[in-house]
Amino acid sequence: MTDGFDDLETPCLLLDSDKLAANVAGMRVRLDRLGVTLRPHLKTAKSLDVARIAMASPSGPATVSTLREAEHFAEGGVRDLIYAVGIAPQKLDRVGAIRRRWGVDLAIVLDSVAQAEAVAAWIRRNGDPLPVLIEVDADGHRSGVNPGDTDTLVAIGRVLAEGASLRGVLLHAGDSYGLNDPAALRAAAEAERQAALGAAAILREAGLPSPVVSVGSTPTARHAENLDGITEVRAGVFMIGDLFQAGVGSCAIDDIALTVLTTVIGHQRDKGWIITDAGWMALSRDRGTARQAVDQGYGIACDSAGHPYPDLIVRDANQEHGILALRPGASASVPDLPIGARLRILPNHACATGAQHDRYHVVSDGHLTGAVWPRISGW
Amino acid sequence: MTDGFDDLETPCLLLDSDKLAANVAGMRVRLDRLGVTLRPHLKTAKSLDVARIAMASPSGPATVSTLREAEHFAEGGVRDLIYAVGIAPQKLDRVGAIRRRWGVDLAIVLDSVAQAEAVAAWIRRNGDPLPVLIEVDADGHRSGVNPGDTDTLVAIGRVLAEGASLRGVLLHAGDSYGLNDPAALRAAAEAERQAALGAAAILREAGLPSPVVSVGSTPTARHAENLDGITEVRAGVFMIGDLFQAGVGSCAIDDIALTVLTTVIGHQRDKGWIITDAGWMALSRDRGTARQAVDQGYGIACDSAGHPYPDLIVRDANQEHGILALRPGASASVPDLPIGARLRILPNHACATGAQHDRYHVVSDGHLTGAVWPRISGW
Repeated sequence: MTDGFDDLETPCLLLDSDKLAANVAGMRVRLDRLGVTLRPHLKTAKSLDVARIAMASPSGPATVSTLREAEHFAEGGVRDLIYAVGIAPQKLDRVGAIRRRWGVDLAIVLDSVAQAEAVAAWIRRNGDPLPVLIEVDADGHRSGVNPGDTDTLVAIGRVLAEGASLRGVLLHAGDSYGLNDPAALRAAAEAERQAALGAAAILREAGLPSPVVSVGSTPTARHAENLDGITEVRAGVFMIGDLFQAGVGSCAIDDIALTVLTTVIGHQRDKGWIITDAGWMALSRDRGTARQAVDQGYGIACDSAGHPYPDLIVRDANQEHGILALRPGASASVPDLPIGARLRILPNHACATGAQHDRYHVVSDGHLTGAVWPRISGW
Repeated sequence: MTDGFDDLETPCLLLDSDKLAANVAGMRVRLDRLGVTLRPHLKTAKSLDVARIAMASPSGPATVSTLREAEHFAEGGVRDLIYAVGIAPQKLDRVGAIRRRWGVDLAIVLDSVAQAEAVAAWIRRNGDPLPVLIEVDADGHRSGVNPGDTDTLVAIGRVLAEGASLRGVLLHAGDSYGLNDPAALRAAAEAERQAALGAAAILREAGLPSPVVSVGSTPTARHAENLDGITEVRAGVFMIGDLFQAGVGSCAIDDIALTVLTTVIGHQRDKGWIITDAGWMALSRDRGTARQAVDQGYGIACDSAGHPYPDLIVRDANQEHGILALRPGASASVPDLPIGARLRILPNHACATGAQHDRYHVVSDGHLTGAVWPRISGW
């Protein structure tokens, strides 16, 4: 029995549904043991088929990064969503339309009094008690109210509580992506939890509600030892995995469910180069592993069974050309891959590589299943 | 009269059709003076509307980087195309189908005897004298036969000449992207020309035809002083421009026709950060300017009229968050941009940023024209 890859046009995405299912099951067991709900982030896969494997039920809960995702997953039956990017007032009418059209419990996040006032005014005009989570800054990474900034937390909370729309706090320990030591990752997860509990306590002490205490990032979700007081964990890339997460220590390279299938289109033998048709358009421009202990170039080259060739990586990429070569200093030799040979590239970043494609070709037990799962893009 | 941007959902692409037209006109004047045909590369814009502005006629000529582009532009009436990525034998049937279905003169490129033999066998089976250009390596950048490798050039030429399909040579001076000195760019253009003429002469001396001598890259197209003996120039990014090309010296920042419209969604005032809804999903992961004299982060922040804010760049980006901050060491102050304010980001790389979107909103004279130009993706 052949793998079926020869019939595919390259470059294209292969998704190993066995690894996907195992990654999801592993996270679910872990969070069940810690007593919290998994609210998977759908921004990595952007696929209803993947969402249905990752979610506890076909109606959710789940997390999205764009309103386009919210619409797509609502259309597909998901009814419990957080749009986890700070809200722009201009987007409130679209949020309201999604809530009405599909009856979705779609919550938003914000981190300023200005946004809270815009939301409160919108609620007064529209009569829809839009649920809101206050974004709290876990680690100085990006957005969110400082967890010790009682004045701002309470001021936002009071504006929102008027419209009965305050639902709690939300954090994302984004700086955990820069770590790679299990003890440091455990500490980052605990710091995220402490910041969340502290912010929720400030609201509650001011007489404001915080039924939801939401945290999440794949590295902290994989390393947390105690999630007492946390109600839910959001994580996305864990389902698929990638070389960056392997570098952090959030997965093994063998857990990565996504590869780009590519074809050899040339050689520069005196330089030890193999040229393929998967350039950065197919792999993305993501070079996240350049900052890690092991720089994987634009990805690791594997045979069609998914086994890495020793030390063979995508050393450089142009728009539609990948240049495979050995890692600097490697003692392996370049494999003999003739024109037309097929290989698979493990990506640096599942979110970025996936976004370059509009579908997944599903692989199970090493063979194409024939299923093609569409994925969405845009806003 | 307002600019009309307030009605757009962000993030989205704005394309200034005045700048686009001026960039195309400038290149056309330049190449007319040098006596060569412009065969614009459509991989940057991936839009039929843009192609019709860039091409000498609605039927071409033009260059593409994927067979999906070839199909799209053939469907739109283009009849003279080169697919300028080394051919995989598996793609020949699709090439043949495009040629038959639309009557397109679609040529392919290759740089090995193995590929030439696969093409010759395909021609014998199909009776379609598929035109082929031999890719020649201008500067060690990527693919192509070494221009001094007479044996390989003649061996490929003889295999192809049998099927009457040898059309000439094609080069791409990719290493010119690493330059930024006008004299060095002029020298790179001349080196590209010399390599092209040398390879064509080798074929001709062996009694083989080379009616086409095709070169191209935006930096060399903008700097060549003499193109005698060259029949056509392929270039694509020149139409739109980007910060990377400005760093090379191929355009001015004010020539860049593409911006990403974005909305302010937050602040971290103690750090001097403005958070927007254009993260790397909207801007791409391209950090090409990091290798240049001026690192533009993920892009330069401009007001809605397109004027850069002094020293304000996208310092970092997450999937759906852009972090604006001043350049390191800047003396300017962070502008006061409230929640909901709209701004425009000049991109590092037009090909990569464009690829994150499915349409252009057209701007002329500073206002939306109402035209929306679709763009394609995939393979």
